[in-house]
Amino acid sequence: MPKLLILSNEAEDYRRILEAENLPDLIWASSPADDVDIVLGEPSRVKSALAALPALSWVQSIWAGIEPLVGPAARRDYILTNARGVFGGLMSEYVIGYLLAHERKIFKRLEDQKNKSWDETETGTLLGKTIGLLGVGSIGAEVARAAKFFGMNVRGYTRGSETSTHVDKYYHGTDLFEFAHGLDYLVNILPNTVDTRKTINADLLNALLPHALVINVGRGPAVDESALIDALNQNKIAGAVLDVFEQEPLPKEHPFWTTPNLLITFHTAAPSLAEDITKLFIENYKLFVDGKPLKYQVDFEKGY
Amino acid sequence: MPKLLILSNEAEDYRRILEAENLPDLIWASSPADDVDIVLGEPSRVKSALAALPALSWVQSIWAGIEPLVGPAARRDYILTNARGVFGGLMSEYVIGYLLAHERKIFKRLEDQKNKSWDETETGTLLGKTIGLLGVGSIGAEVARAAKFFGMNVRGYTRGSETSTHVDKYYHGTDLFEFAHGLDYLVNILPNTVDTRKTINADLLNALLPHALVINVGRGPAVDESALIDALNQNKIAGAVLDVFEQEPLPKEHPFWTTPNLLITFHTAAPSLAEDITKLFIENYKLFVDGKPLKYQVDFEKGY
Repeated sequence: MPKLLILSNEAEDYRRILEAENLPDLIWASSPADDVDIVLGEPSRVKSALAALPALSWVQSIWAGIEPLVGPAARRDYILTNARGVFGGLMSEYVIGYLLAHERKIFKRLEDQKNKSWDETETGTLLGKTIGLLGVGSIGAEVARAAKFFGMNVRGYTRGSETSTHVDKYYHGTDLFEFAHGLDYLVNILPNTVDTRKTINADLLNALLPHALVINVGRGPAVDESALIDALNQNKIAGAVLDVFEQEPLPKEHPFWTTPNLLITFHTAAPSLAEDITKLFIENYKLFVDGKPLKYQVDFEKGY
Repeated sequence: MPKLLILSNEAEDYRRILEAENLPDLIWASSPADDVDIVLGEPSRVKSALAALPALSWVQSIWAGIEPLVGPAARRDYILTNARGVFGGLMSEYVIGYLLAHERKIFKRLEDQKNKSWDETETGTLLGKTIGLLGVGSIGAEVARAAKFFGMNVRGYTRGSETSTHVDKYYHGTDLFEFAHGLDYLVNILPNTVDTRKTINADLLNALLPHALVINVGRGPAVDESALIDALNQNKIAGAVLDVFEQEPLPKEHPFWTTPNLLITFHTAAPSLAEDITKLFIENYKLFVDGKPLKYQVDFEKGY
């Protein structure tokens, strides 16, 4: 009988939802123990508990990012599955929301209101703009679909896959600068791996147009933070919107808080909602008890 | 040979674009004259010139709203066509942009950034919300399509038509309060007619939920401005976003500038772009010289 341990700040929510499902044969563990074989939890907390879980068979991460559990020295004698397919809608809302705030001058209009200034200056539009997606997995595909809905040209830069039909043109490997050439918006959705660190560096930022907007909803390390600050201070790009950072929470003394034309949010673009994650877990749990291959498996080698 | 007069603040843009098209048989007039038979222009300017245009056959309005040219006393011995089908995309961007700003707490996050406050409070989503559209013409149909894209339930209140397939349920006539019951968002896109004045009044605002957001992108008179101010001051609704007003530009002393939870913009939601309007004009001009019925004709009786 499978024994499950939940390691999450929202453990009570997860247990409440799962108990209501009456999953067959499930036994609950309340702390790490020799006979726990399934863990549902946050990767950093799972990492800390790994040594006390010798019989581990399967970890379902409640986040998309599983960096603490991969890498050359990571334990690999269990199946790691992450959260996928549940963030695309929220990420699309975030990206489209900030693109519209930018084009439709939503912050400028609020300033005008405060100044009682009736300013009929026309706004921009998403229609006909070109967006470049760094990474087109399940989240990127949803962002691509939303971008197409609003009439954008969509470019995708991926390791190799070309699965989304909403991407007009794919780029790979050394095509990065061709991909970036002429973009109106650059959106990073890459996972955090050795290969993706500082993908958005000074060279790439220099290749962008002065009116370009950069959005990072992937992982913080994909952006060279110093290079981005320089690019914004020198008006090499029009602006940036960041939801993720090298260090989170962002330290009080970090220059990002006050960098011009930079908007920051607090890793809030696409929260893991217990209602969504438990659905993934239940789907995989049924496969697990049937001895079938699990969905959303992470490749420890690739790191995603 | 048709003689055309342009009456617009952007007359030079219109003439430049149209001259490049080499429309057959077209003669240009530079001021109102007895033999002008076509006018392309802003309704208020056309209204002022009407008396000097005895031979008028056709007026193409460059705006959607044609209030100055209709009503009981209006001259009706010519064909009036207005601008349609070109504002839907921009209106959708505006509505979705402000709904996302509301749900994703875009202004709150900016305040947090200014205060260097890392606030991980989760945001809302458009998914599963219920939007009610007052008026579902060509613009409303586009807003409905965008609402459906983001997973909303869509209600439409119309005089009688039920043409958009993106509306889940239609309401008419005395169904107004049933239509309003339980809405998360109420969006006005009604034209300004005798029948639509003050549709959003104290009774309708009282029927909304405390978390409801009201958006007016139609015409100002559809909203009872005093009633809206009262509803916002008493927190009967969560907020409002207005692009149009009884009097435009909004007078400096108007309470809307400082009403809590009210965002105003400056009739900028969907500007008439010369590139778009000239396409409509050319389409109709070809029908006109062929003696065929014009598109986008206004019914002087209905007023839209």
